[in-house]
Amino acid sequence: MNLPTFDDVLDAAKRIEGKVQKTPVVESSLLNKWLGHRILFKAECLQTVGAFKLRGAVNVLAKHAQEGTLPKRVVANSSGNHAQAVACAAALYNIPVTIFAADSISAIKAAATQSYGAELRRFDTRTEADKAVKAAAQETDTLWIPPFNDPDVIAGQGTVALEAIEETGPVDAVFAPCGGGGLLSGTFLTTRAMLPDAQVIGAEPANANDAAMSLQSGVIESLPGPAQTLADGAATPSVGEYTFAFLQQLDDFYEVDEIQIAYWTQWLQHLLKLHVEPTCAMSMAAVAAWAVENETPKTALVMLSGGNISASSMQKIWQQDYLLQPPMIGPQE
Amino acid sequence: MNLPTFDDVLDAAKRIEGKVQKTPVVESSLLNKWLGHRILFKAECLQTVGAFKLRGAVNVLAKHAQEGTLPKRVVANSSGNHAQAVACAAALYNIPVTIFAADSISAIKAAATQSYGAELRRFDTRTEADKAVKAAAQETDTLWIPPFNDPDVIAGQGTVALEAIEETGPVDAVFAPCGGGGLLSGTFLTTRAMLPDAQVIGAEPANANDAAMSLQSGVIESLPGPAQTLADGAATPSVGEYTFAFLQQLDDFYEVDEIQIAYWTQWLQHLLKLHVEPTCAMSMAAVAAWAVENETPKTALVMLSGGNISASSMQKIWQQDYLLQPPMIGPQE
Repeated sequence: MNLPTFDDVLDAAKRIEGKVQKTPVVESSLLNKWLGHRILFKAECLQTVGAFKLRGAVNVLAKHAQEGTLPKRVVANSSGNHAQAVACAAALYNIPVTIFAADSISAIKAAATQSYGAELRRFDTRTEADKAVKAAAQETDTLWIPPFNDPDVIAGQGTVALEAIEETGPVDAVFAPCGGGGLLSGTFLTTRAMLPDAQVIGAEPANANDAAMSLQSGVIESLPGPAQTLADGAATPSVGEYTFAFLQQLDDFYEVDEIQIAYWTQWLQHLLKLHVEPTCAMSMAAVAAWAVENETPKTALVMLSGGNISASSMQKIWQQDYLLQPPMIGPQE
Repeated sequence: MNLPTFDDVLDAAKRIEGKVQKTPVVESSLLNKWLGHRILFKAECLQTVGAFKLRGAVNVLAKHAQEGTLPKRVVANSSGNHAQAVACAAALYNIPVTIFAADSISAIKAAATQSYGAELRRFDTRTEADKAVKAAAQETDTLWIPPFNDPDVIAGQGTVALEAIEETGPVDAVFAPCGGGGLLSGTFLTTRAMLPDAQVIGAEPANANDAAMSLQSGVIESLPGPAQTLADGAATPSVGEYTFAFLQQLDDFYEVDEIQIAYWTQWLQHLLKLHVEPTCAMSMAAVAAWAVENETPKTALVMLSGGNISASSMQKIWQQDYLLQPPMIGPQE
């Protein structure tokens, strides 16, 4: 197993330049005041397709284009944002694409995927979709772009932290959410290379805590069934060998409950005026816990993964009114 | 009555520079494809205090500072965004401030106003708050910053269009929402001076259609009672003499129903990944109607007024799922 290196991230950045957006870094003075730390947010919700996922998918195809090995057909399996990313990336290279998804894919992500011209095949479970994509990938001239467990995908996602740190300069800690671990692995890789002293911290839903279980046992564990979490971007059943190798080097890892996910989604939407999806809120919940553990003022960088939210998720996020409660900055229980 | 001129807008821009944010202009390629026109959005939801209102309030105080006539106390009446704007502007000049508001002020706007150090006085109705602020304004060394019916406030709001058009270059039409008419008047004034051939078009809630009634009758009409509309930023009971003088010169004016307001709030949040308030959606509904009336591809510029939304409003906005229906681009009934 050849793990991607920071040089791969730098190559990816050159390759995808002009094909993906440079997204802004934003902050809230009110939030900084409340937490006593400076929190910078890399707004990948403003990326094309509304998520960082485009970077990895474009890097894979751009590398094939460089090497003269572009396929005749692209396939991918995804719970949502990766589907859109692969559909959009394949459209950039005029390659037909089929997406294999579980029926639980949010309607809005399904519609967006199809709007890029992709064929969408639905399966009862994610596991069935994953099996079907592997079969399809065996066909001639067909390229499977995996959602996270791939060196080129990880290197592509690492360009989020690269771009952010080039803009912010040194920070004390970098936070990213964990689904399959692609963004978190790329963030770890890049941060360690650029800022060796900065902590790199992950977060996942307590209701989909396969990564936390895996880190505890030392082997990759899978969720027993479909995860019930607002953070649909992090409901992946298990991480992969590539991403697990990076996850095992993290400085800290938080499990976030559903109330905190809804709470911080509301506050991030309100304070940043960005339509951030619940997966972003997990990192912020981790920041809030980290903030009280650090007495001297520090600077944190948070990866906002995306902004694709179904109406039914918006209803769940806003069911309670959390805006009248001051931010929870105590450590998580 | 001395109406503000474009020179006043240029002066305001110089005065408020560095005290307010330069906000981005954004667009959605998907929306452009659907409508067959290019729609550019000036994202004043990303302005400090989450609304364009800061520009007018800062312009008033900055002009007093220039002239050496800063007051010892500032007072203002507002349904929300103006309250925060005046509170924030007064804090910039270290002047104590009291806000007079109707009890219907959204809790989140009230909390934000107080977070800038303002005293908040609540009244049963907006009319009572308006009376009380006029009494308070009679006290010595007290300055009332009106929410819209003031030449310096209008000139300040005109800097939104100035900044946007400097960035976009020529456009065919400019859209702004109408509450008291400050943003719309400033937008009209600036657009006419910079782009004499561009249409300037307003929009207000059908449920708070005092401006439309006034334009029809030729005199300023008032709403009979509190308006029931999601677009709380446009629930103002009547426009003023200054703003009416500009409104009468508009090229077109739309009344937007509550379903369209919710519909376009959802779609703007989803497509732009910005937390835009329902008042922004009215302009977009007007654009959709305008779009079908214009067969050749045109470019429109839309003023996104703000992004301060209570949890209860978010619940109402997302009650139905409008994301599965294609955008309504037919003319309004």
